[in-house]
Amino acid sequence: MDVKITISKQELHEALQHVSKAISGRATVPILTGVKLDVFRTEGVKLTASDIDTTIRAEIPVEDGVVTVHESGSVVLPAKFFVEIIKKLPKETVDIEVQPGFTTLITSGKTKLNLVGMDPEEFPATPIGDEDPTLSLQGDELKELIRSTAFAVSTSETSPILTGVLWELSAGRLQLTATDRHRLARVAVDGAADQEISFHNVVITARTLNDLAKIISDDEEVQISVGTSQVLFRAGRVNFFSRVLDGNYPDTSKIIPTTFQSELEVSTKAFADSIDRAHLLAREVKTNIVRLEVDAEGAVRIESTSDGVGKVVEQIDADKFTGDPIKISFNSKYMLDALKATDSDHLHIGFTGPMSPIIIRPQGGGSSDKLNLILPYRTGV
Amino acid sequence: MDVKITISKQELHEALQHVSKAISGRATVPILTGVKLDVFRTEGVKLTASDIDTTIRAEIPVEDGVVTVHESGSVVLPAKFFVEIIKKLPKETVDIEVQPGFTTLITSGKTKLNLVGMDPEEFPATPIGDEDPTLSLQGDELKELIRSTAFAVSTSETSPILTGVLWELSAGRLQLTATDRHRLARVAVDGAADQEISFHNVVITARTLNDLAKIISDDEEVQISVGTSQVLFRAGRVNFFSRVLDGNYPDTSKIIPTTFQSELEVSTKAFADSIDRAHLLAREVKTNIVRLEVDAEGAVRIESTSDGVGKVVEQIDADKFTGDPIKISFNSKYMLDALKATDSDHLHIGFTGPMSPIIIRPQGGGSSDKLNLILPYRTGV
Repeated sequence: MDVKITISKQELHEALQHVSKAISGRATVPILTGVKLDVFRTEGVKLTASDIDTTIRAEIPVEDGVVTVHESGSVVLPAKFFVEIIKKLPKETVDIEVQPGFTTLITSGKTKLNLVGMDPEEFPATPIGDEDPTLSLQGDELKELIRSTAFAVSTSETSPILTGVLWELSAGRLQLTATDRHRLARVAVDGAADQEISFHNVVITARTLNDLAKIISDDEEVQISVGTSQVLFRAGRVNFFSRVLDGNYPDTSKIIPTTFQSELEVSTKAFADSIDRAHLLAREVKTNIVRLEVDAEGAVRIESTSDGVGKVVEQIDADKFTGDPIKISFNSKYMLDALKATDSDHLHIGFTGPMSPIIIRPQGGGSSDKLNLILPYRTGV
Repeated sequence: MDVKITISKQELHEALQHVSKAISGRATVPILTGVKLDVFRTEGVKLTASDIDTTIRAEIPVEDGVVTVHESGSVVLPAKFFVEIIKKLPKETVDIEVQPGFTTLITSGKTKLNLVGMDPEEFPATPIGDEDPTLSLQGDELKELIRSTAFAVSTSETSPILTGVLWELSAGRLQLTATDRHRLARVAVDGAADQEISFHNVVITARTLNDLAKIISDDEEVQISVGTSQVLFRAGRVNFFSRVLDGNYPDTSKIIPTTFQSELEVSTKAFADSIDRAHLLAREVKTNIVRLEVDAEGAVRIESTSDGVGKVVEQIDADKFTGDPIKISFNSKYMLDALKATDSDHLHIGFTGPMSPIIIRPQGGGSSDKLNLILPYRTGV
């Protein structure tokens, strides 16, 4: 059980930064405030942190030449302090030596630390991570999928399943969906996996996905292994295990209209800037209500009113407008979120009546198929 | 009372950013959540905001060619919304027109706003600001004086006078002092004013000085007019009025030792890095206690211990050490603050015993005369 290593400060610091994302500020079990250090003579060092829902493991192999193993073994060290002190050590290498009772001696230059370690036997068993990957994505592609959906999840714990993003794979098409019952974001990419592989109802919390996005590099290949109770994302030396949420994700396909009474095409920037200004006033009264009118000629008028503060009226021209004139009210915050996620120069917005979902899509589309839905406010316009 | 102007968005935005620093988030009188807009045919536009303690006025003169006055008058507009919407307007110029009842019409491109204005008669009378300057400082010099002292004020309202920084001028020497009874920071510069001008007991809250530092450019000349109840800082088109705190600032000169039992000279970086690492552990137990020992040979040892976490031991070499060996404990946070403010490559630290003040000065000194004092902890070392 006695660890003794000489390790690169930089490599240890980077690995600690990755795994410490799994540590919750709300950890109730002391052992989960720690980082587990496992040292193997041939494999090298593995660092693991977990909040049960998410487990992150980073590997520093002997073959990389950045660690020398003198003695193998394991210890759990207090994460917060360990991460910060390693970063601030004076020299490029660090000596770590575990003494009986898990007291850990850390030396770098003329700095000597005695850290109170914890028993690694108390640390929860962690997944092995030797599954075959189900699909693989480029880092920037995975981050874009997360960025396009995670914002739309529910933050209320009354429907835990809606705090997650739904992952579905079928016929080589990967689709992610998130909704909080007031709005919905969906994105799909083709060619992410073999045609014959499929999975459904894989739901991962947005918090976990946002943490994952933070530790992945754009140009890294991410291998994804989907199991029944957990998903493993493997990127380089980092294994990111996420629990799959229990329960069935609602079928959202039926609420998405496919034909429209009115269709508006508009410059994303002009539309977003106008909504943004109207939002400044709309948020003053906390309801975020903005009213949109489009007349038969395609003149777009955006309005918001806040008693005691004032009124904003915006006018922009449509690129194209077909169908019936529109008068509709919606949450400006939801619209701004959707516009930010849509990320194209021009938008296609579909309407099927003042009480029916508004559908926002990129005009022309890109490599991924994006859709945002916003339910209008039931105000007497 | 009818205002009508055409004004540069950029100039209006900058002026609003300056004056809005005076608006307190805790304003209890509605009128103080507003910015007063005074329009004069020949002078141009003056914007004023105030939280009573601090009043900031920015001028946009007609002669700068960035404003055209069609009608003079005054109105008070809701600051938070006004500042944000101006920044986001679509065109480079803005038309502002006040209608009867203070409703204010703001137009820029196809954006039209109706803002509910307030009666300018309700706005508190603001100082005129035609005083002759008492002294003047370069912007970066003034900011350095503030940065060297404001951190050391008391945050407790039990001694309101200690929430301020003491300004004193005598024989051309300007001195600023701040203390919270546990530590003290003092800085002095020569040649800031004529030899015959002097003032004493001018105390300005650190909050106000920090706000002032934010709106002053490094290369701007700041004219300072010291009155009995207020101080005016005038920089370019901005007038910054600060109330002088009531009461007498305590005489701190007697607590500052001038001779030492032991004197330590040390590299600021080596010392600061060691204190920083010891602080990481010291703060875990919230007391921030760090122990410093220097032996007769000038070997410096810095230690901190935190039950349940561990112990840090640091060793550095003194550049020079004279006098008796030292064993002393102090607050690591106070020491880090003092080192940050001292800002020189090498330090001189003077000791007069384990229970007497520690005096930190830059070794060699710079253009300003800086001193930091820290009272040691009364721990049985």
